[in-house]
Amino acid sequence: MEANKEKSASAPPDLVSKVHEIMDEIATRADECEANRVVPVENIQALHRVGLLDSVKPKKFGGLEVSPPEMFQAFAELAGACPSTAWVSSLLAVHAHAIAYYDPRLQEEIWGDDPEALIGSSIAPLGKLKPVEGGYRLSGRFPWSSGCDHVSWCLLGALIEDETSGQKLHGLLAVPRADYQIEDTWYSSALKGTGSKDVVVNDVFVPGYRAETLMALNTGTSRGFGTHKGDIYTLPFQPIFASNFSAVAYGIAESALDVYRERLQNRVRAYTGAKASLSPPGYMRLAESYHEVRAARLILESEWNDFADHAARRAAPTLDTMVRWRTSQAYATRLSVSAVDRLMMASGGSAILLSSKLQRCFRDVHGAAAHAYSDYDIATQILGRHLIGAEPDPTLL
Amino acid sequence: MEANKEKSASAPPDLVSKVHEIMDEIATRADECEANRVVPVENIQALHRVGLLDSVKPKKFGGLEVSPPEMFQAFAELAGACPSTAWVSSLLAVHAHAIAYYDPRLQEEIWGDDPEALIGSSIAPLGKLKPVEGGYRLSGRFPWSSGCDHVSWCLLGALIEDETSGQKLHGLLAVPRADYQIEDTWYSSALKGTGSKDVVVNDVFVPGYRAETLMALNTGTSRGFGTHKGDIYTLPFQPIFASNFSAVAYGIAESALDVYRERLQNRVRAYTGAKASLSPPGYMRLAESYHEVRAARLILESEWNDFADHAARRAAPTLDTMVRWRTSQAYATRLSVSAVDRLMMASGGSAILLSSKLQRCFRDVHGAAAHAYSDYDIATQILGRHLIGAEPDPTLL
Amino acid sequence: MEANKEKSASAPPDLVSKVHEIMDEIATRADECEANRVVPVENIQALHRVGLLDSVKPKKFGGLEVSPPEMFQAFAELAGACPSTAWVSSLLAVHAHAIAYYDPRLQEEIWGDDPEALIGSSIAPLGKLKPVEGGYRLSGRFPWSSGCDHVSWCLLGALIEDETSGQKLHGLLAVPRADYQIEDTWYSSALKGTGSKDVVVNDVFVPGYRAETLMALNTGTSRGFGTHKGDIYTLPFQPIFASNFSAVAYGIAESALDVYRERLQNRVRAYTGAKASLSPPGYMRLAESYHEVRAARLILESEWNDFADHAARRAAPTLDTMVRWRTSQAYATRLSVSAVDRLMMASGGSAILLSSKLQRCFRDVHGAAAHAYSDYDIATQILGRHLIGAEPDPTLL
Amino acid sequence: MEANKEKSASAPPDLVSKVHEIMDEIATRADECEANRVVPVENIQALHRVGLLDSVKPKKFGGLEVSPPEMFQAFAELAGACPSTAWVSSLLAVHAHAIAYYDPRLQEEIWGDDPEALIGSSIAPLGKLKPVEGGYRLSGRFPWSSGCDHVSWCLLGALIEDETSGQKLHGLLAVPRADYQIEDTWYSSALKGTGSKDVVVNDVFVPGYRAETLMALNTGTSRGFGTHKGDIYTLPFQPIFASNFSAVAYGIAESALDVYRERLQNRVRAYTGAKASLSPPGYMRLAESYHEVRAARLILESEWNDFADHAARRAAPTLDTMVRWRTSQAYATRLSVSAVDRLMMASGGSAILLSSKLQRCFRDVHGAAAHAYSDYDIATQILGRHLIGAEPDPTLL
Repeated sequence: MEANKEKSASAPPDLVSKVHEIMDEIATRADECEANRVVPVENIQALHRVGLLDSVKPKKFGGLEVSPPEMFQAFAELAGACPSTAWVSSLLAVHAHAIAYYDPRLQEEIWGDDPEALIGSSIAPLGKLKPVEGGYRLSGRFPWSSGCDHVSWCLLGALIEDETSGQKLHGLLAVPRADYQIEDTWYSSALKGTGSKDVVVNDVFVPGYRAETLMALNTGTSRGFGTHKGDIYTLPFQPIFASNFSAVAYGIAESALDVYRERLQNRVRAYTGAKASLSPPGYMRLAESYHEVRAARLILESEWNDFADHAARRAAPTLDTMVRWRTSQAYATRLSVSAVDRLMMASGGSAILLSSKLQRCFRDVHGAAAHAYSDYDIATQILGRHLIGAEPDPTLL
Repeated sequence: MEANKEKSASAPPDLVSKVHEIMDEIATRADECEANRVVPVENIQALHRVGLLDSVKPKKFGGLEVSPPEMFQAFAELAGACPSTAWVSSLLAVHAHAIAYYDPRLQEEIWGDDPEALIGSSIAPLGKLKPVEGGYRLSGRFPWSSGCDHVSWCLLGALIEDETSGQKLHGLLAVPRADYQIEDTWYSSALKGTGSKDVVVNDVFVPGYRAETLMALNTGTSRGFGTHKGDIYTLPFQPIFASNFSAVAYGIAESALDVYRERLQNRVRAYTGAKASLSPPGYMRLAESYHEVRAARLILESEWNDFADHAARRAAPTLDTMVRWRTSQAYATRLSVSAVDRLMMASGGSAILLSSKLQRCFRDVHGAAAHAYSDYDIATQILGRHLIGAEPDPTLL
Repeated sequence: MEANKEKSASAPPDLVSKVHEIMDEIATRADECEANRVVPVENIQALHRVGLLDSVKPKKFGGLEVSPPEMFQAFAELAGACPSTAWVSSLLAVHAHAIAYYDPRLQEEIWGDDPEALIGSSIAPLGKLKPVEGGYRLSGRFPWSSGCDHVSWCLLGALIEDETSGQKLHGLLAVPRADYQIEDTWYSSALKGTGSKDVVVNDVFVPGYRAETLMALNTGTSRGFGTHKGDIYTLPFQPIFASNFSAVAYGIAESALDVYRERLQNRVRAYTGAKASLSPPGYMRLAESYHEVRAARLILESEWNDFADHAARRAAPTLDTMVRWRTSQAYATRLSVSAVDRLMMASGGSAILLSSKLQRCFRDVHGAAAHAYSDYDIATQILGRHLIGAEPDPTLL
Repeated sequence: MEANKEKSASAPPDLVSKVHEIMDEIATRADECEANRVVPVENIQALHRVGLLDSVKPKKFGGLEVSPPEMFQAFAELAGACPSTAWVSSLLAVHAHAIAYYDPRLQEEIWGDDPEALIGSSIAPLGKLKPVEGGYRLSGRFPWSSGCDHVSWCLLGALIEDETSGQKLHGLLAVPRADYQIEDTWYSSALKGTGSKDVVVNDVFVPGYRAETLMALNTGTSRGFGTHKGDIYTLPFQPIFASNFSAVAYGIAESALDVYRERLQNRVRAYTGAKASLSPPGYMRLAESYHEVRAARLILESEWNDFADHAARRAAPTLDTMVRWRTSQAYATRLSVSAVDRLMMASGGSAILLSSKLQRCFRDVHGAAAHAYSDYDIATQILGRHLIGAEPDPTLL
C-alpha cells in the first residue's frame, strides 16, 4: 500500500512539493549533521531557497503565511530526510509566528535589514530578570537552544512580574546575537545534529518592548497583536510552537516504515538463510506499525486542520480545544514512538549499525518524545483532570 | 472535555438525531434483551419508527439511502444504549444493501408486499449445494444468525461452482422464512441479546436468481446491479457489511468513557474511603482511553467518508483501498477494546456487578472483537503481505 | 511443553494431589455453581473430604497446618476446575489462619463442637461500632461476603478506637451466624458462583475478645498469638489472606493455556476452512501467554516460598518484604490477566459461547483482578513510593 | 526497596564479589570504551585479575569451573558498569566452554603455553569450506566478532558436510590469530564498545581436529567430550553460549532502575520547577519496571539453576527443556527492554544526553535485544510450535 498515494490523494500542498525538491540533498548530509552536532549551513541555505523557513513569517517581510497543515506536513516530510534538520528548522520557522505578535519595533529590528534573519529560543523560564528603567536586565544560562548557531536573535524564558497584580508570569525576551554567548554543551545520543547548545547571557539590558508573556502571546493581548492580517496571526502561539515536536516524531515514523519495508523485502537471516519477507511476524509488525503511524497522522491532521479552521473563523479556542491540542500531540508522538520501536525490535542486529537509517529513526523519535511537551504522563494528567472537571494543576504544563 | 461537542461540531447527521430520540427507550430494555437472549420486538418497532432499519434500503421500497458516515455513526451511537440491539439492527440494515444488488424479482418478493421486511444472514459458506434445473437444492446448519427471529428472509452462505471455470466461489443464497427452521442454540457470554441462533435448512429449492457470489456483489457484476440509482449502490457490498462490527465496538467504547467518567467523579474506595477522583492514575486511565477511542473514531470516520467519496465519484476502490478498508476496521476495534479493557481494569470490584453498565461494555466489546472480520492477527497478515508486495493468501479473508 | 511436567519435577505437594482427586467432580458442577450463584454444597463436602478447607487450621482442631506453597498451589490448581469454588474455598481456608490468632475462647466457640466449622468475612471497615460494657454493639451492611452461605461465623470490618491513643484502627469482629442475616444481592458477570452476598447486622453485641485489629493480626500482638506452635502461626495474617486472589488468577491462567492449546490443535476457521494450528500467530500467542503465566508462577512461588522461609525462621518480615509481598501479587495477577486476554482475543467467536471454558476463564480472571488487592495502579503507587523513600500514603492500602 | 538486599539474601556467589571489586574501575572507562569502539586493554586485564574470563575454563588450564548461576550473575552485575565490556567478556569466557569439548590437541595449542589465551567467535555459518587431505581450506568474511582484538583464536562458522550422510551441518572451526585479518567495520549505535569487527579468512588450512559441529558440541559427541570432569562439561554448549545475551540485557535493566531512582529523587522539571519525585506517574513507572526486571531475574535464575541442576545430575536436557532454555531467555530480554524503555520514556530530555547513564542503558539493552537469539518473534514461533506438537521449523533457530 502506498502511504504516499493515500496522502497525495488530498493534493500535495505546495510547501510539501518544495521540500521534496531538497529531500535528497538534505538526506545526503544527515551523517555530517550528526557528526558535527549541528545542522550544516548548506541545509539552512536549501531551506531558505524553498521557503520552508518563511512558512509563517509575515508577508510584509517576505514570508509565506501558509496554513498550519501545509507547514507541519512539510516539516514531517523533511524529518524523513534528516530528523535533526527538521527539528531545528521547524522551530526556527515557528518562532517567526511569535515575533509577529511582538512590538513592530522589534519586528523591524529583526527583519528590517535582513528578511532572512532567524530566531532561536530557549523557553524554560530559567533567566534572572531585574526590572530597570525602560526594561530589564537579564542574566542566565539557557540550555537546549536548538539551532542557535544559525540565528540572529534568541527568545529566552524568564518569569516576569506583572506590574499591577504582582503575579509572576512566564515571559519570553528577545535578545540579539551580540548580547549572548553560545557554549557548546551539546553531546547527545538523539537528535545529535540539532546543536541544542547553551545560550549564556550576562547582565544585558532588554528593552521592555522586547518582552512578552506566553499568556499575551496565546490570548491576542501582546503589543504587536493585529499587526499582520493573515488568518494565522489570530492563533495562539503556544499550540503552533508545540506542534513541531509531534510533526517531527510522526515524520520520522513514516520514514521508518519505508526503511523497514525495503529492508524486509531483501533481508536474509544470517543463521538460517531464511528470507525474512516470508515470515508472518516480519510483515505483521510492519502492518501494526503502519496502522499506528496512520492513526498518528489522522490525529495530527485533525489538529492541524482545526488550527486552520480556527484561523479562518478567527475564533479563539475554548479550554476544551486548548486541552485537546495540548495533549493529542503527545499521544500522536507516543504512537509514532511505538511504531518505530516495534520496527526496530523486529529488525535484528544490522539495524543498530550506523549504516542503517533505522537506528537514527529510533534514536531521534525517542529524542523528539523526550521533550517536555511530549511527556505522555503529563499529557494524561492534564487531560484526565480536565475530563473529570478538576482544577488545572499548575505543576503540569 | 465534551467528546459529543467535538462530534456535533461537524453537524449531527439526521439519522443520529433520530437515534437520540429512542436511546433512552432502548437502554431501558438492555437487561431484558440480555435476559431473553434476543432483541425485544419493541426495539425493532422503535428502530423502524425512526428509520434506522431503512438506512440503505432503496428509496423505491421506502428506504432512506443515507450516506455511510451517517448510517455508521447512528449505529455507533445506538451501541451506547444496547450493544446487542445495535449489532443486530446494523446487520439487518446493511443486508438491504446486498439485496439491492440481487435480481429485481427477489427484491419484489421481499419488499413488494412488506416494505418493512428484514433480511438476516449467516454468511460462512457452510451450506451444501446441489445444482438442479433452474437453481439449487440447499441443506445445512448456519450458525450465528444474529437477529434471525425478526427477519423474513435469510442470506445463507455456500460455495457455488462457476459454470464455465468450475471454480468454487463463496455465494449467498436468499431463503424465505418458510424454508428454514430456527434452533435456539444461542447461549453466549457476550452480545447475549443478539439471538444469534442456528438457521437450519433441509433440502430446499433455491431458484438461481436468488443466488449471487460475494465477488459479484463486490464488483458490480450481480444480476441486479444498476437497478437503483443512489450513489451507495455503486459501492462493493462486503466493506459496507463488515463496517458494522467496528462501528458497534467503537460505539461501546465511547459509552464506556461516559460510564467511567461519571463513576470516577463519585467513586469512594471501600477500604480507605479515599476519593477516586483525586487519584492521578484514575483520571490518567480515562485520558489514555479517551485518546484511543478518539483515534478509533478518526480512523473509522476516515473510512466512512472514503466510502461516501467513492460513492459520490462512482469509483471502484483500488486493491490498496480495499485492503485498507478491510484492515483498518480491525485496528479501530482493537483500539476500542484496549480502551474499554483499561477502564474495566481501573474500576475495581463494583464494575463486575450486573448493575454496572461497564461490565456489559466490557463483555460486548470483546464480543464484537471476536468476529472473524475483527481478528487483528488476520488483518495484519493481509495488510502486511500487501505492503511488501506478496501474493494474497487465500486462507486469510 | 508440559507445564505440568515442569511443575511436577519439584515433587507435587500432598495437598495438590488431593485436589487432583476431586478436580473432575468440581469441574462437572462449574455450570451449576454459576447458575445458582453459589458454590454447591457438594463441592464444600468434597473440599472437606480432601482436607483443603483445613489447610491452615490449627492441628488442635484437626487442621493440616500445611506450608503456604503447598496451600496456594493447591488452590491455584483448583481454580482450573472452577474459579468460583477456588475463590470461596481459599478465602474460607485462610480465615482459619486469622482465627488462630484470636482469643482461645473464640477458637473453642467456633471449632470446639464443630471442627469443620467455616468462617467467612467482609473486611472493609464499613461497620458502625459502639463501645459498651464488655465489648461493642455492631451494625452495618457488609457486602462481598464470598461463600457466606457455607459459614458459621463471619469476620466483619469496622474501625476500632484504641482506648489509650484514641486512634481508629481497622478491626475485624467475629460474629456468629445467628447474629446476622444474608441478603442475596449477588448478581455478577464474573466469579458468579462465589455467592458474595451482603451480610447484614443489626445492633448485635460483640464481646471484646471477639475483636482484633489488622495491626494486631499482622504483628503478633493479638490476644491469641502464640496459642499454636506451627511455624505458620508466626506469619502476619494479611499477606496470607491477600495471596488467595493472585493464586486464583494464576490458576485460571494456567487452565486457559490448556484450553487454548487443545482448541488450537483442532480449530478450523469458518470462513476459509483453514487449520488454525498452521497459523503462526495462533501458536505465537500461545507461547507469549505461556511465558507470562510462567513468570506469574515464578513470582508467586518465590513469595510463597518466602512465606515458608520466614515461618521456618520465625522471622518478622521487614517493611521491604511486606511491600514486596503486597505488590508482587498484583503484578502476577496482571500477568495472568494479560495472558488470558491474549488467548481470548486470539480465539475467535466460538470462545464467547457459554459452552467454551475460555470465556469463563476470561470473565473470572478479570473478577479476581477486580479485587482491591489486585489493583495494579494502587500496587505501583505503594511500591513506587517505597522505592524512592517517600512516606507511605494512608489512602493506598 | 533494596533489590540488592533481596539478591544478597541468597548469599552473593564468590565471582560476583570479585566483580564488585572492579566495578568502579570498569565504569570509569565506559566512555573511553565507547569512544574507541573496543573494550580497553585495562578492562581485560582487570577481568583476568578477578578471574571472570576463567569462569568456565577447565581447571587443568587454571580455570575456575564455577556454576552457571554464579557466572551469569557475575556478568549481569558487570553490565551495570559497562554493557560493552560485559558483552565481550561473557562471550570470551563461554567460548572456553566450547573449547573444552574440542580435541585435546587444540586445547593444548590454545592454552598450553598461554593459559590466559582468549577465544573469539563469529558463528553464523558464512564460511566457504573445501574438504582437503587432513582437514579443510576455509575462506570468508565473518562479521560481528565481538572482542576480536583481544583473542588468540577465533571460532568461525561454516557448513560441514557429514561424510557418511552427506548432510550439511553447522560447524565451528578454530582458527589462530595468524590465519585471519581483522577489518575495523564496527560503527554501531549500540554496544559501541564491543569492537564487533569483521574477521577475514583467505584460503587457510584448518586441520580436521579443529572443527566440530554444533550438534556434537550440544550432544556430548565431540572429539574432546569427557576430557574434563567438572559437572559443567556435561552441559550442551549452545544454551550456555546463548545465555550471555539475556544476562547482559537483564544486568543493564537492573542498573537502569538504580539510575532512574537516583535521578527521580533529585529531578526538578525545567518548565514548572515541580519536584518529579512527588509525581505519582514518576514513581509508578519505577515500580512497573522494578516488577518487570524482577520477573526477568526470576526467570533467568530459574534457568541458570536448571543448568546447574542438570550438570549436577549429569543429565541431558529433554527437548522440552531445550526449548524452554532457548526461548525463556528471549522473554527475559524482552522484559528487560520493556523496563528500560519505560524508564527512558519517563525521564524527559536530559536522559538523552551522553552525560546520562540512562541513554547508554537504553541503547545497549536494545543492542543486546537485537541479537538473533533474542528475537522474540523467533522464540515464540519455536515455543508455540513445540507447545502444539508441530514439527520444528528449520528456518527458526
